Amino acid sequence: MRILVIGATGTIGSAIVKVLGARHDVVTAGRTHGSFHLDLASPDSIAALYRSVGTCDAVVSAAGIAKFAGLDQLTYEDYFVGLTNKLMGQVNLVRIGLPFLSDGGSFTLTSGILSREPMKGSASISMVNAALEGFVRAAALELPRGLRVNGVSPPWITETLIARGMDPSIGIPAAQAALAYAATVEGTATGQTLDPRTFVSA
Amino acid sequence: MRILVIGATGTIGSAIVKVLGARHDVVTAGRTHGSFHLDLASPDSIAALYRSVGTCDAVVSAAGIAKFAGLDQLTYEDYFVGLTNKLMGQVNLVRIGLPFLSDGGSFTLTSGILSREPMKGSASISMVNAALEGFVRAAALELPRGLRVNGVSPPWITETLIARGMDPSIGIPAAQAALAYAATVEGTATGQTLDPRTFVSA
Repeated sequence: MRILVIGATGTIGSAIVKVLGARHDVVTAGRTHGSFHLDLASPDSIAALYRSVGTCDAVVSAAGIAKFAGLDQLTYEDYFVGLTNKLMGQVNLVRIGLPFLSDGGSFTLTSGILSREPMKGSASISMVNAALEGFVRAAALELPRGLRVNGVSPPWITETLIARGMDPSIGIPAAQAALAYAATVEGTATGQTLDPRTFVSA
Repeated sequence: MRILVIGATGTIGSAIVKVLGARHDVVTAGRTHGSFHLDLASPDSIAALYRSVGTCDAVVSAAGIAKFAGLDQLTYEDYFVGLTNKLMGQVNLVRIGLPFLSDGGSFTLTSGILSREPMKGSASISMVNAALEGFVRAAALELPRGLRVNGVSPPWITETLIARGMDPSIGIPAAQAALAYAATVEGTATGQTLDPRTFVSA
């Protein structure tokens, strides 16, 4: 398969590239790194990316930002960071990418644990992550040509926790999270969001 | 209790006013009907509403629009109808309304069945409804002064189905849905989204 990985040099993205790159032709993209660059918040930038990359069998997104801050700190505009970048950016990867996917191809988007397991400061991120899972459930019903769309909802990642000086024991390694992405790409599921903690690799 | 009901003359809203009005002081608001008017998509309009209404013990929203259309028909701008109106409008009812709620007061927002049970055409609505439920789960963790926030996820409403010439047997009456709203207002739950089909009134 020819697989476009967006956010390919991030902590999770690079683990995805490693696992999928061992058996597929992986094309990397990111905001500033990777073979192709894009601004996820810009539909025009996403369209330009797809025109440059051409036809793919799968698109995997491990990209998107949203603002983490206290409920009493988040401004109206802060919410729109997540809505236009992590949420609509990934929705646009599907909307705009449809004609570039070969029959039976798949999209895999990234939500995150805060969707179902919120914490103080996560109001905007929890909202965006839950929205992505709702979009995945619904959009899967309408994709043509056997196309599929799924989500992966990563928990805290060990490498990220270590980098932030936090307790790494609550996380899982990026390599383990990457297995859930590989499963959605190589499997047959659609409309699902996988939790890498409970996903068992075949 | 003094309860502000937004969307008070809609199918569900009028049923909420009926059940809560029997035992509380209900203040009605809506886009064009009710004692107070507001544009849910406008933070300024919401702020003006709260300044006019003053202190409340509960705010119940049965308001908000989002676009229903095929995945291949929804434009980028169509998604933002739901994001700015039904989603951020109700988020803003909480954000902006906080100082106007008395201690121990509550917000009740409306998501909808399409969050968990999507159908063709619901990509934008499913996304918005799921987002609201994610926001409710997270925001509840940070509300001060014993304030609560919950959601209600109404299924299809019998009256709406009849008005649209659809099979009414898949719905529940608006009066039954209203009981779930009353339960969140008068109960102690927070961070929850109630499904009126499975909610049993005390």
